[in-house]
Amino acid sequence: MPTDADDALRSRLAAAFPVGVVSCDPVDRVLLGTDGSKIRGNAFAVVKPTDEDHVRTAILFAGANGLSVVPRGAGTSPTGSATARRRQIVLDFSRMNRILDVSPRDMVAVVEPGVMCGELQSRAEAVGMFYPPDPASARTSTLGGNVATCAGGLRAAKYGVTRDYVLGLRCVGADGRVFETGGRSLKSVVGYDLTRLLTGSEGTLAVFTRLTLRLLPKPPHAATLLAEFADDQGGFAAADAILAAGVLPRALEYMDRDVLGIVAGDPTPRSGSSLLIEVDGSPADCRDQAERVAAAVRSIGALSVRIADAGDDRDALWAARRSISSAVYRVFGAKRSEDLGVPRGRLAEAVAAIKAASRACGARCVVYGHAGDANLHFNFPYDPAVDGAKAAVDAAVDAAMAVALRFGGTVSGEHGIGLKKIDQVRRETDARALELMQHVKRAFDPAGILNPGKAIPE
Amino acid sequence: MPTDADDALRSRLAAAFPVGVVSCDPVDRVLLGTDGSKIRGNAFAVVKPTDEDHVRTAILFAGANGLSVVPRGAGTSPTGSATARRRQIVLDFSRMNRILDVSPRDMVAVVEPGVMCGELQSRAEAVGMFYPPDPASARTSTLGGNVATCAGGLRAAKYGVTRDYVLGLRCVGADGRVFETGGRSLKSVVGYDLTRLLTGSEGTLAVFTRLTLRLLPKPPHAATLLAEFADDQGGFAAADAILAAGVLPRALEYMDRDVLGIVAGDPTPRSGSSLLIEVDGSPADCRDQAERVAAAVRSIGALSVRIADAGDDRDALWAARRSISSAVYRVFGAKRSEDLGVPRGRLAEAVAAIKAASRACGARCVVYGHAGDANLHFNFPYDPAVDGAKAAVDAAVDAAMAVALRFGGTVSGEHGIGLKKIDQVRRETDARALELMQHVKRAFDPAGILNPGKAIPE
Repeated sequence: MPTDADDALRSRLAAAFPVGVVSCDPVDRVLLGTDGSKIRGNAFAVVKPTDEDHVRTAILFAGANGLSVVPRGAGTSPTGSATARRRQIVLDFSRMNRILDVSPRDMVAVVEPGVMCGELQSRAEAVGMFYPPDPASARTSTLGGNVATCAGGLRAAKYGVTRDYVLGLRCVGADGRVFETGGRSLKSVVGYDLTRLLTGSEGTLAVFTRLTLRLLPKPPHAATLLAEFADDQGGFAAADAILAAGVLPRALEYMDRDVLGIVAGDPTPRSGSSLLIEVDGSPADCRDQAERVAAAVRSIGALSVRIADAGDDRDALWAARRSISSAVYRVFGAKRSEDLGVPRGRLAEAVAAIKAASRACGARCVVYGHAGDANLHFNFPYDPAVDGAKAAVDAAVDAAMAVALRFGGTVSGEHGIGLKKIDQVRRETDARALELMQHVKRAFDPAGILNPGKAIPE
Repeated sequence: MPTDADDALRSRLAAAFPVGVVSCDPVDRVLLGTDGSKIRGNAFAVVKPTDEDHVRTAILFAGANGLSVVPRGAGTSPTGSATARRRQIVLDFSRMNRILDVSPRDMVAVVEPGVMCGELQSRAEAVGMFYPPDPASARTSTLGGNVATCAGGLRAAKYGVTRDYVLGLRCVGADGRVFETGGRSLKSVVGYDLTRLLTGSEGTLAVFTRLTLRLLPKPPHAATLLAEFADDQGGFAAADAILAAGVLPRALEYMDRDVLGIVAGDPTPRSGSSLLIEVDGSPADCRDQAERVAAAVRSIGALSVRIADAGDDRDALWAARRSISSAVYRVFGAKRSEDLGVPRGRLAEAVAAIKAASRACGARCVVYGHAGDANLHFNFPYDPAVDGAKAAVDAAVDAAMAVALRFGGTVSGEHGIGLKKIDQVRRETDARALELMQHVKRAFDPAGILNPGKAIPE
């Protein structure tokens, strides 16, 4: 319930910044308080900093007035890590979006948090360098958000995740003090690794104002293969065979045939699977790897194998993979989506168990994602107009998480916790380790000013 | 000064364990209280746990009796992180040395902390897998110590450091409670990243009892090149040219000609440099990469390039590199050694500045190490029998660190802090970031039982 006191406080907030930095517009407060989780937000106000001093001012204002802050990149979080509620100020980083430095000699880039991941990828490639992390949202998500959630993505099997490319952070802490971690050296072991502690902490320990990221030399060439299999398990067996052949592809994307039918607009359930494989290196090396991959997938009975090593042909093989998430919404109207992980060797078994558990709940489960690191996206589509459909999906999701945990896996491989999975953290995390995380939170943010209620239960 | 009270306490300690677990022998206390730093230790007692319960008992005993514990792998630390003093119990992990699991399917190994790094490398390779971290001490240092110090090594340019291969840790905390972080999934973003916070914390936050490590498929082949250059800068220019050609070798080891003379037993100063390059991949890919490397180094005027792609020939090229550290001791009797890092693009400039500063101090400085990640080992040899030689070296080391920091670098790329660099941490670390590290230490170990005085100043 808005009050006169709230409006007075909003006026004071706006007065603390130059004109145009603060928006108290009710539409902005809802739109920029809501993220990809679709949990409806309603922020107290929105601050759009153009420099670090605005970030400091907002955090100090929040602390002095019983408010908290929610850092926001582009708001693509599927878990609600950027959802803002009534007593929360959104820190919208869309205007702190400068690439400050791309240095091939240092193999380093320095950026503000609002830079889109895809923009850095392009800028790096233009000078012969390579920013390996490639979340499916690369064109629409920010590097600040990627670091805050330790984003994974499509090249993690070979190149690792965002964490592996963060060299240093400049931050504002809960007390408004600016501090820096790490630096521009590619290796350093001085003091505790605050850089990685902050990576993936969802803005609950500090707010980033500058990121120093590691670049690699750009691989000269890439080749993509798409293999199809008669049953659900074929794609997993093929991934195993490729790795056993000593090839480490940068992408190993599994898609069940259900999901490919949905992409084609046909929701009829069917069995079968595909595996999308991408290798990189010199042209000769790509040919060599592609041949070994093709031999490996044929050895386990692939129905077909297509190979593409030019940009457009490769894009065509990727097209279905990239459109899955939106296609499921378009065909069904609603879904729940979970990015579960399991130990790699148990992937096929876990998927079969999760599909069986879903059927037992009366829900459908379609599966795609990262077979290389055993982190798959389980989509549970439903028609919201059908009575009981949502309840069946909720039961199926709970059963799926239980299967992942029973197999020694994780309830989130790359999307994070946000608000949506906050109740799941205790299911997975050692009780004492969680206490230590809570101690860390209190040490960094004793008054609970920084994105409270996200990442870990308090 | 030993007292009757100390001896009584030692008897109580010994009585808390089965026979043979505790040694209070004065020789053991000195030998196992001293590490590669050569700082003379003298532990209160030595506990050689064979299981986790012994670790718990020792930590609880220390806490209850005003003592602290110092975890020890094989004691190779050059910084004193395993040095134990009078009121400290050494936890010697040499008997917790079992490889519990090597799973090619999960791409995971599970080990006790006392396993030698080289033993895991061999065991993994025997089943077609690969443990990439390769500290120069691989055959003589333990994985527990490698994780505790976030060891780097010879393959970090391409494969990263120990941190990048730690998936999960089982630990005993300062209060004796056992806890686990991470797990067997290759990706997970649930809760704060305690796994990486603990990696590199030098046993000051928790004591490891089990490590879950990531493996990769074994690269089928490797090739090694050795190129020589007329001046000191040639090796650095060659490293730049190789990376600019889009090749990412797993090793890019620089050696100045001074250091190679010393290895050959001749300490006469001379100029010139060598670069040892190792690439891996399929045989065809190695040939292709080796050709591109050779072309790159010739383009900047290499005096000679040798290529080896069979095991024995490769070992011959590596022989000089592997014997540097011991050769410097043999020829000079004493040295100080610093593993400084700088932003990659400033490497040649920094080395020239450090050599000039050393000359100005009347000290000699020979240089070798990891040009790929700009983390070099600066050795300052001296004859301890010569008056003033040690003082000149101390001044040169201080000047070298100042140069590294002035260039935006680090006082330790991979060896850590221990006792020897504890006074340097404030020079490099942001004041507020250090306060936060101290808060973390107090949250994990409020009574200062775990390896106090190491890693960060308290």
